[in-house]
Amino acid sequence: MSIETLSWVGGVTDGFLRIIDQTLLPLELCAIDCRNVESVWEAIKRLRVRGAPAIGIAAAYGMVIGVQNTGVNLFERRFYDVAQYLSSSRPTAVNLFWAIDRMKSRFESVWSSSVSGGSGDVLRVLDELFSEARKIHEEDRAICRAIGEYGQAIIKNGDTFITHCNAGGLATADYGTALAVFFRAAELGKRIMVYADETRPLLQGARLTAWELMQRDINVTLICDSMAAMLMGQGKIDGVIVGADRIAANGDTANKIGTYGLAVSAYVHGIPFYVAAPVSTFDLALADGGGIPIEERDADEICCGFGKRTAPEGVAVYNPAFDVTPAKYINGIITERGIITPVNKENIKF
Amino acid sequence: MSIETLSWVGGVTDGFLRIIDQTLLPLELCAIDCRNVESVWEAIKRLRVRGAPAIGIAAAYGMVIGVQNTGVNLFERRFYDVAQYLSSSRPTAVNLFWAIDRMKSRFESVWSSSVSGGSGDVLRVLDELFSEARKIHEEDRAICRAIGEYGQAIIKNGDTFITHCNAGGLATADYGTALAVFFRAAELGKRIMVYADETRPLLQGARLTAWELMQRDINVTLICDSMAAMLMGQGKIDGVIVGADRIAANGDTANKIGTYGLAVSAYVHGIPFYVAAPVSTFDLALADGGGIPIEERDADEICCGFGKRTAPEGVAVYNPAFDVTPAKYINGIITERGIITPVNKENIKF
Repeated sequence: MSIETLSWVGGVTDGFLRIIDQTLLPLELCAIDCRNVESVWEAIKRLRVRGAPAIGIAAAYGMVIGVQNTGVNLFERRFYDVAQYLSSSRPTAVNLFWAIDRMKSRFESVWSSSVSGGSGDVLRVLDELFSEARKIHEEDRAICRAIGEYGQAIIKNGDTFITHCNAGGLATADYGTALAVFFRAAELGKRIMVYADETRPLLQGARLTAWELMQRDINVTLICDSMAAMLMGQGKIDGVIVGADRIAANGDTANKIGTYGLAVSAYVHGIPFYVAAPVSTFDLALADGGGIPIEERDADEICCGFGKRTAPEGVAVYNPAFDVTPAKYINGIITERGIITPVNKENIKF
Repeated sequence: MSIETLSWVGGVTDGFLRIIDQTLLPLELCAIDCRNVESVWEAIKRLRVRGAPAIGIAAAYGMVIGVQNTGVNLFERRFYDVAQYLSSSRPTAVNLFWAIDRMKSRFESVWSSSVSGGSGDVLRVLDELFSEARKIHEEDRAICRAIGEYGQAIIKNGDTFITHCNAGGLATADYGTALAVFFRAAELGKRIMVYADETRPLLQGARLTAWELMQRDINVTLICDSMAAMLMGQGKIDGVIVGADRIAANGDTANKIGTYGLAVSAYVHGIPFYVAAPVSTFDLALADGGGIPIEERDADEICCGFGKRTAPEGVAVYNPAFDVTPAKYINGIITERGIITPVNKENIKF
């Protein structure tokens, strides 16, 4: 990609976060610059930046941006306010909270030793925070590569897969989680085909996944979400790979709405169903998927998502952004440390 | 409804077919007048009139319109040309062919005895054809009422159902097939709730079903197709009722794309899945669903269905308009003669 999904521009004290505005894709490939924490929050909330790993990276940089130019007396309070504020942007992807927690740990390890006063101390803390954000960002590149590599065990020449939503380069610092498996397969010369679910209501599959696969010359065919079962019934599908927004200790997985139906259908047809996600997506504090908060979004995403009203005025709408797929329907979880299979709490240990 | 889905306006020789242009709903409730057979063909092809029973009625009237003002020498040839032309509008719904076949039978029963010459004979044939079209239209009203009544056996006070696409008043001459069951339940004072799948790509659920249910004050909530499985998993759904476009001799049922996935999901969750359709929807010449032709439609319905392009230029698209649900996933077929259950070829006898 000619523009990176996320990048830091400038120095620590005066720099800012540049992101691809994914709401404009595929018609326009434009960057927007987030120079204050409100614009980072808005970019996450409005899905200008989306995908669990990318949200975590954006939040980490957002915490740097939020305390730039803050005096020593207000710094600590401001830091925690910024953390709380960014936490309120989206509730389901645990990577957001994981990244914020990493930034908090780094802050706590340096703040007390630096708080003797004077602006020099604040700059040191800011440097440390920036270094942690950068580390989260850099680590994610390596994670994508490792997931892509481990995923090769489940994909062979001639295979046809379905994926849902977008778990690609636009969702991460590098070339994705679920899509990393496809990208790596193509790099290795495997001839594969991918059906991309369009992923209603916000069409991340049509707008982002199809676009990413085409950019890398992978054979992709766009379908409506409701067509996946038919393809499975016709025997055309060898496997399903999706990303994840939060995975409980037993392997139950929250991902984009529609993932559960896809998993149920794969199960009935005997088609292997895989999740690809970094270890940071696991929330071991939750015994199972029942405790994962599910974000509900605005009715207008369904009723007039494309600039034209397509449902009656005043109709009741249910718009959950995610669903939870029980571990029993998941054949394996591809992480940067290997494939977890079978998926159960005994095998989920980090 | 203040405008009827289909109505004949004027006399036999100079009348025309007036239909609600369903592509404009729910924003505009407008009628269009089909005064020649080309406009009837276009209305069916472009889904201005849709729904298996309504397509049959439109085609029957279209055959009258196609031979108005045709001299005796050209009449027979013209009649068969019109039949063939209208048959080419949409391939899946068997009611189209069933209605055309009824018109052909009526024609054949009167043509030879009227063909001694003179325009009077042609007028008599035209009268007969109009009478047959009117009969198909009137019969459908009674069929809707009977389906609604028989359907009461599977719906009780407090139930919550999912339906897919639109099998309501807009798909028939009266108040529908699948929706007739809901409408009749409401008339009887049953308190029910319906989740309407939006039904990508053309959003018949959002645009038509939600609108029809709201018109009759039935508690309806709109969802994306991909949300149905989650609701089933949450234990919120008591049953599914859908329409049908063609049913094979063993009960395999073609209906709007997405029906199969919904049936698979209902099956896994132990939720009863019903089809509501008139006897004219059965195609007993087909042993099973494998022989049902599946219409594939234009890629633009998926890529720019809302007036704005939402997928990359040049992306490959698969857009089947229907899928086939095997009989084993269907708990019963509600017809105007009663409920067929279990669904198998022994029970499908007319």
